[in-house]
Amino acid sequence: MIDAKGYAAIKQGAALEPYSFQRRTLRPDDVAIDILYCGVCHTDLHFAQNHFGSTIYPLVPGHEIIGRVTAVGEDVTKYTAGDNVAVGCLVDSCGKCSPCENDLEPYCAEGMTMTYNSPDRQTGENTLGGYSNKIVVKEKFVLSVPDGLDLQRAGPLLCAGITTWSPLRYWQVGPDSKVAVAGLGGLGHLGVKLAAGLGADVTVLTRSQSKAKDAIALGAHDVLVSTDEEKMAAAMGRFDFILDTIPVAHDISPFLSLIGLDGVVAMVGAVDMLPSFHTGSLIMGRKSLTASMLGGLAETQELLDFCAEKDILPECEIIAINEINDAFERMERSDVRYRFVIDMSTV
Amino acid sequence: MIDAKGYAAIKQGAALEPYSFQRRTLRPDDVAIDILYCGVCHTDLHFAQNHFGSTIYPLVPGHEIIGRVTAVGEDVTKYTAGDNVAVGCLVDSCGKCSPCENDLEPYCAEGMTMTYNSPDRQTGENTLGGYSNKIVVKEKFVLSVPDGLDLQRAGPLLCAGITTWSPLRYWQVGPDSKVAVAGLGGLGHLGVKLAAGLGADVTVLTRSQSKAKDAIALGAHDVLVSTDEEKMAAAMGRFDFILDTIPVAHDISPFLSLIGLDGVVAMVGAVDMLPSFHTGSLIMGRKSLTASMLGGLAETQELLDFCAEKDILPECEIIAINEINDAFERMERSDVRYRFVIDMSTV
Repeated sequence: MIDAKGYAAIKQGAALEPYSFQRRTLRPDDVAIDILYCGVCHTDLHFAQNHFGSTIYPLVPGHEIIGRVTAVGEDVTKYTAGDNVAVGCLVDSCGKCSPCENDLEPYCAEGMTMTYNSPDRQTGENTLGGYSNKIVVKEKFVLSVPDGLDLQRAGPLLCAGITTWSPLRYWQVGPDSKVAVAGLGGLGHLGVKLAAGLGADVTVLTRSQSKAKDAIALGAHDVLVSTDEEKMAAAMGRFDFILDTIPVAHDISPFLSLIGLDGVVAMVGAVDMLPSFHTGSLIMGRKSLTASMLGGLAETQELLDFCAEKDILPECEIIAINEINDAFERMERSDVRYRFVIDMSTV
Repeated sequence: MIDAKGYAAIKQGAALEPYSFQRRTLRPDDVAIDILYCGVCHTDLHFAQNHFGSTIYPLVPGHEIIGRVTAVGEDVTKYTAGDNVAVGCLVDSCGKCSPCENDLEPYCAEGMTMTYNSPDRQTGENTLGGYSNKIVVKEKFVLSVPDGLDLQRAGPLLCAGITTWSPLRYWQVGPDSKVAVAGLGGLGHLGVKLAAGLGADVTVLTRSQSKAKDAIALGAHDVLVSTDEEKMAAAMGRFDFILDTIPVAHDISPFLSLIGLDGVVAMVGAVDMLPSFHTGSLIMGRKSLTASMLGGLAETQELLDFCAEKDILPECEIIAINEINDAFERMERSDVRYRFVIDMSTV
């Protein structure tokens, strides 16, 4: 076993606090990793506070992991000690179902094994995440960090990044696409950068004019304030694709009117009841509404390589691990531009 | 002007009754047609009874027209007298917008000119439909009836047929597809025949076991009774594509669970508020919900050619025009298998 230390929520209602535990002895296909940085995702907060009712305590959150290989199991061929690597939201899946065979492991028919708060597929032990200094992960679920990608800021690509990248790729967003990104938080700001990186014409949809300057600075070409009825009416049918990163339930009708013939609204933020809307808003233009989560291992690697090549990085505020409870509070009031990253040397 | 006679609703609340009127003198790009048969669509009833609040009386319904060319304007090149032709739901569009240029005239940015109850684009006169013995239509909106297609039964392909064909083609349904068709009325029965004709494995989704025998007779390979919770649970993720022809508002969640990864539910029946559903039912499988209406002229011609080649025809009950009011009543209580067609020699 490998001694590890990090921060955990010990029980429901408790703040995160220092926590010592052990990582498993390497299996033949395992990679041992010293964690250098870990991004802070809103999901971490949801699990720490048991918002889904499924949290097993103690909980060590964290699934935007950047680290360095320290040792590998005897069957590992892809990595050796010293390699810079990344681990995202999942650390295992069945490997045999149709989604797994098609490189879409998050949709594993048996359910993916999440990086934290999931039973290990061999022992049943609860997985513990990246708010810690060490982790042991099956080779297939370890990604390579390409040279040139800033280790300090790459972490959020593993969750916020792939969540926005996957639909942009699946729906073939490219230089001919007119894209709108709704919501400008952790996901949205990466959606803007990635869509712009793919060559699309990108507009940020926001309720507040105050975000316009930031949106342009992130690479958006235009801003549309959704409370401006006149401008919204004038923009009817303007977009091919809307990446909707808004994290709470909202009426989708206004967005459906903004897309044109064969347009798509892809939701990646709201996990909630979708308010009733009229089928006419889909019919009049053969429009589609879709939603997705994360992305497969292969497309996550593609994303990391793309970001290294295009020099795309999340906007991050680097914190020490003892600042995590403050960071959670600030995240709850959207007071972060745009993602916290824990420097794990502070453990 | 050309003398014509047919049946019209003279005012709101009135039954259809014999009506004499005139068709326009041929413009250079016009085709004059003797109507042989006209299908009866539920939309005809909606307009006759002003359910949408937009009916202009007198209303001559009918947009599933099969006829024979009697004369053509001087610029017409495609048709000559004696040709068997068809006219569907639209008789004009702007011709210049992106949807028109992409052969998707029903989505014309300026709005299509419907076969009845629309202002003619040149004179503003209200268009009058196919419950009549003659019609004059712009060449571009006249379709060719291929040899071998039964004139008596082809009419419903022009509305019910294209409405189901267009999404099957757009979403690339073919021999590898597992398709479910929800609802087994005018649209649904053609959806079954067309999907099976494309080589798909077709299941009919119905609330009632009583339709099972008919479904199989129409070409379905299986029937799934949607009120059987056990079988519905066992069928989770089974289909790639659901063609949802149910004409009234309904919860879409059960259908979303029946499709697998990247599955699509395409609604072509309900023009109504869609009840609230959870985004998780889209997220868990990157699923899409879409809806559409009709199809372009080119794909309608493709449909007619396909049906002639594959010997696919709607199931029709042929009526005389003086039976139309009874037919409307029977249609309202779904007492037709599966489409009425008026024999226009009875005018």
